[in-house]
Parts: sequence; structure tokens; C-alpha cells
Amino acid sequence: MKKTVLIMAGGRGERFWPKSRKNLPKQFLSLTGDGKTMIQLTVERILPLVDMEDIYIATNRDYKSLVQEQLPDLPGENILCEPIGRNTAPCIGLGAIHISKKYEDAVMMVLPSDHLIKYNDMFVDTLSKGCAIAEKGPNLVTIGITPDYPEIGYGYIKFLPEQKDGDAYAVDRFVEKPSLAVAKEYLATEQYLWNSGMFMWKVSTILDNLQQFMPSIYSGLQTIKASIGTAEQDSVLETEFTAFPSESIDYGIMEKASNIYILPGTFGWDDVGSWLAVGRIRKNDDEGNVVSGNIITVNTSNCIIEGDKKLIATVGLEDLIIVDTPDATLVCDKNSAGDIKKVLEQLKNADREEYI
Amino acid sequence: MKKTVLIMAGGRGERFWPKSRKNLPKQFLSLTGDGKTMIQLTVERILPLVDMEDIYIATNRDYKSLVQEQLPDLPGENILCEPIGRNTAPCIGLGAIHISKKYEDAVMMVLPSDHLIKYNDMFVDTLSKGCAIAEKGPNLVTIGITPDYPEIGYGYIKFLPEQKDGDAYAVDRFVEKPSLAVAKEYLATEQYLWNSGMFMWKVSTILDNLQQFMPSIYSGLQTIKASIGTAEQDSVLETEFTAFPSESIDYGIMEKASNIYILPGTFGWDDVGSWLAVGRIRKNDDEGNVVSGNIITVNTSNCIIEGDKKLIATVGLEDLIIVDTPDATLVCDKNSAGDIKKVLEQLKNADREEYI
Repeated sequence: MKKTVLIMAGGRGERFWPKSRKNLPKQFLSLTGDGKTMIQLTVERILPLVDMEDIYIATNRDYKSLVQEQLPDLPGENILCEPIGRNTAPCIGLGAIHISKKYEDAVMMVLPSDHLIKYNDMFVDTLSKGCAIAEKGPNLVTIGITPDYPEIGYGYIKFLPEQKDGDAYAVDRFVEKPSLAVAKEYLATEQYLWNSGMFMWKVSTILDNLQQFMPSIYSGLQTIKASIGTAEQDSVLETEFTAFPSESIDYGIMEKASNIYILPGTFGWDDVGSWLAVGRIRKNDDEGNVVSGNIITVNTSNCIIEGDKKLIATVGLEDLIIVDTPDATLVCDKNSAGDIKKVLEQLKNADREEYI
Repeated sequence: MKKTVLIMAGGRGERFWPKSRKNLPKQFLSLTGDGKTMIQLTVERILPLVDMEDIYIATNRDYKSLVQEQLPDLPGENILCEPIGRNTAPCIGLGAIHISKKYEDAVMMVLPSDHLIKYNDMFVDTLSKGCAIAEKGPNLVTIGITPDYPEIGYGYIKFLPEQKDGDAYAVDRFVEKPSLAVAKEYLATEQYLWNSGMFMWKVSTILDNLQQFMPSIYSGLQTIKASIGTAEQDSVLETEFTAFPSESIDYGIMEKASNIYILPGTFGWDDVGSWLAVGRIRKNDDEGNVVSGNIITVNTSNCIIEGDKKLIATVGLEDLIIVDTPDATLVCDKNSAGDIKKVLEQLKNADREEYI
């Protein structure tokens, strides 16, 4: 069966400010030090498995030109523009009807656009196995990541160790972000994996599930589908999509559906959730600094310093994040990375849109 | 007797990098937060005592246009351009012959161009008293600062408590920068003051002392004096001045001469020796930060943040110095301010003159 992929690229993350902005979110940034943006790496990674013409990018319409610029080989009609963010369920539904318009049925992979994978061959191998499981029945397949520590920022998936199909486990249930105590319990059971937000299913399977569990979205999607290729396409999308509730695929379907399987991913995964991730991902110098740009360090250790042409000199520093952009510079203690959003709040409150 | 002043403005200090550069040293910077540069403040401060036409600025010829720009009311011929830095003795000698060319004799004050005075009226009052002592005999008068702590970066002057003339004490001796142990002893005696580098004497007195203690310089100065106003003025200055030994007035004269008096200065003095001084001088916010520019602070305390139009956002910081300029940014721990020179060394070693 034909393999297709929907890459979700509508995020507006603020955690990479000042490099990320409302008009340049994380998926369009190069953070790994190789000059490629997150979305470019995502597409490159999947190409052994799908043709470029079968890669769909769902994004906010504000980012259409960024996608075109960064992925010039992608067919223009494969950029699916959401008039407004409505979380993952409407986004995935939109992808599904576009693929179903093109193919009678197909396997559909759903991938985030802004995660990092270390071992790409292993990743492709895992996706292949997932596609095979998705193809052979009305199955919803997901990829779980074996936790390194009791993270409270991710959802978890409980699998059933005794119900195994090849490398995949049957899923018992999806659970939302836990408290630290609960996360620790999860790890102790050895039956929970992190929810990576990656899925595989047949288009027919996900549409059936949408019809069953999210009928109003399903109905709107049918209206949108009928309009594709007509003069009313844009206005119908605007009306119907805007009317959708904002709901995640996890809450809307995965927490309720049957026939869910999970493949543990062993390919080295990082959701690159903040500047701290850059310290993990990129090569350190002898003092543990990760630097990029025109940098001079004196007695400086374990710092992340991200600049460009402008000289940044550091003296006697430890555990800081320094990010220099043409119009804004951030200096942040690593332990306070979570407070970068407070800068954004102050900027919003002061109507200083130019920096957001 | 006519009062004149020589302001010494040839310094090339590196301690305010990246705001100070080889072509923009500290005396030409605004550091006090009122928009005026150090040399502008120095001239303004002395105007109750001398006419603008009797103010002389000795500086390196590279800085002539900076002086003209910042002091547009100063007569152009009062800018005395040293072809090369030769420490304070030749500099003061050059000032003395220019003044002696203009006036039969005059009181000459010598002031640094880059120190800060808090109480200007009190300062003018102290200078007036000093001028009176200078005028009434062949006296060398200096101003001493009562030490706050055993600083090892300054020279000290020992006075004779029992030999008092009005508010002035006779000077026993000038001493070079002491060790910490010695500095502590000095303070314990209550007979040592910091050497502020400010002097008053008659032009005739300092020339007599130059003739006695630094005869080769005196002789060269006479040759320079004879050339003033002639076509050979520049070439004679170049030849003679360059041939002078590099020597301080302290070592060359003050450590050897007689008739030295010291007035304790009570006007609030700061030599503004590093970025840390800016933290002392300028107004703090509630968190102890001294900020200037387009700054947003989140959980930031006791920092010095100096920028301009570009946004600088700080998160979770303490005791840092952040200085942003158009082509270079410094982030430095307050305890490491002395290591800023290591950045300059690296830049010099790498021949990156554009940043020096």
C-alpha cells in the first residue's frame, strides 16, 4: 500500500526566544549546528520511505512561504494551510482527507516537525514496522520512547507486556502529563513509554475513528474534502476549520479507541524542548560550552552561546544561556530557562510586538 | 595670578571594553548616566575657576577630533597633541611651556580627564585653596583622598600631621602601589592618603623642578617652546617629544622635590576604574541592577546592564556585567572584571584589530 506522511508544523513555540519568533517558530530554525532547519531534517529523514509528492505539511497559513522557502522541492498543493490552530485532531483530519482525495487508501504516518532523531536508519526501520502493522488491519500505531527519567512535561502510554505482535505491544491506555510522584510510579512499573506524538495508520482507519469519536469534525472534513479543487476551497476551509473544536488526537481518539499498538523507539529521540536541549545535542568544547558564532570565552564553562557575526565575549561565566540575534539578546541562567516565557509576557503586556 | 588648567586625556584604558576602544577611550565615554562624557564633565566642573580659553587638553593626536567634537567651545590651539604617549612628566611639561608662552607666569592645575567627582562645589573650593598655596611660593600642591579601604591599585602620599598650613599638610613622601599588607599598615598610621593625580603649581615652579630633576626633558621642552607658532612646530614636537623618556611626574619629580603640600579632598572621588564603578556611581533599581538602554529583567539582581536600542533580556541572573555595543557584546561575572583584559589579549593575538 502507498505510504504517505503528514508532518505537523503549526507550532508557535516560545522557548527558543529570541531566535524563535511568532513569525519564525522552532521548526523553521536550525538548532543542531549543521545548518539545516528542524523541518528540513524531518523531511530528509523520511525520504527513504516516501516520495516527496506524498509528503504533506500541515501548518498555519502564516508559515506557508517559510515552508516553500525551506522545502522548495515539495509540491505546493501538499502544504495544507490551517486558517487557525485547532490542535492535532483537526490537523490530522485535514491531512487524512487530502490523502484520501489522492489515493483510494494509503498508509499515513504522522510526525512532528521539530523533534530530533539521532539514528535515522533505525528510525526508518521502526516506521517501516509500524506501517506494516497499520496496513494489516484497522490499527492505530504509535511510537513510544523509553523514559530516561520521570519527565512531567510529556504524556505517557501504558502498554501490555504480554500482548506482543512482533516488536509492537498492544496499548492499554494513553495518560496525560503526570505529577512527579505519578511519573516515578510509571517508571517503576516498566510498562509506560513517553508519548512521542508519532502515529501510523491507514487513512481509512483514522477516518473511521474520527467518524466514531469526533463526528462533528468528521462531518466538517467531508465538506472540506468536497470543496478541494473548487473555487470555494479556501472559503469552505476557513468556515469549517475555524468551527472545529480545539482538540488533540490523543484526547479525542487515542484515549478512547481500540486496536492501538506501540513500538518502542530506540533511535535516539529528543523533542528539543528548550535551549537546554541544544546543550545536550551539540558538541561541547573542553569546558563544556556549546558555542556557535563569533565567540571568545575566558574562564567560561557549561554555557550555551549562540550568536552570529557579532562578537560575544564571556568572562568568568558558568551555566548560562546567551543568545544574540540582530534585534534582541538573551542572557539566562540555565536553571531559569523555564522563565524565558516571562520575558515574552512582559513584551506582550507592553505591546512590543516587534520582539515577539 | 591667572589660573589655568591642563587636563590629561591621553589614556587608552581597556577596562571599559567593549564600550571603550583604542579609538574611543574611557575619557570620551558617558558612564554616569547623564549623557555627558567624562571629559565634558571634567571641563564643566572646572569652569567656575578658569576661563575656557585657559583650559588645555593634552591628548594623543589620534583623539584630537574627539576632543574638538566633545568640547566645541574649546580653542583649537588649546588641544596639545602628543605624537606618542610618554607618561605624565613630558605631558605636564608640554602643558607648562604652552601656558608659559601665553602668560608670564600663571597657576597651573593638572587634572585627570576620567575621574568622577560627586560634590563639585566642594571640589572647586579645594582647588581654590590649592591654587592659593601654589601661588604664594615655589610649592607643589597635590590633592589626596582619604582611603576607604587598603586599595593596592593606587599610589599613596604620606603627609606630616604636625606641619599644617591652613587645610594643607606638608608631604613627607610619595610611595608607589603597595602590597595589601603594606596598604593596611598605611591606613593604620592615619598618615597616608591616596594619590589622586591632581596637582597645582605655578608654571615657573614646575619648570624649575623639571630643569632640576629632569634636565633632558626640560631642554627638549625649550626647543619645542621656541617652535610654537612657526612652520616647524609639528616636526619639532614630533622629534623632541618622541625622544623623551616615558616617565611619571610622581617618580620624576614628586618623589624627589621639596615644598610639597597635600590637601585632603572631601568632595567624593571615584577614579571609575572598571565597570564595577558604574555599579557604585549610578542609581540602582529595587533589585540592585544598574541598567541603561532597552532592557527587560526577570529575576535579575545586582547586575550592570549597559545597552542601547537593541533589546537585552536577562533571566535568573546575579552579579553580572552585560555590555552591548553595535559590534560586540560582553557578558562578565562581576568577580572576573579584572579578566576583561584577557579578551583584549586574545583579540590582539588574533589580529582582530576591529574590536580593540
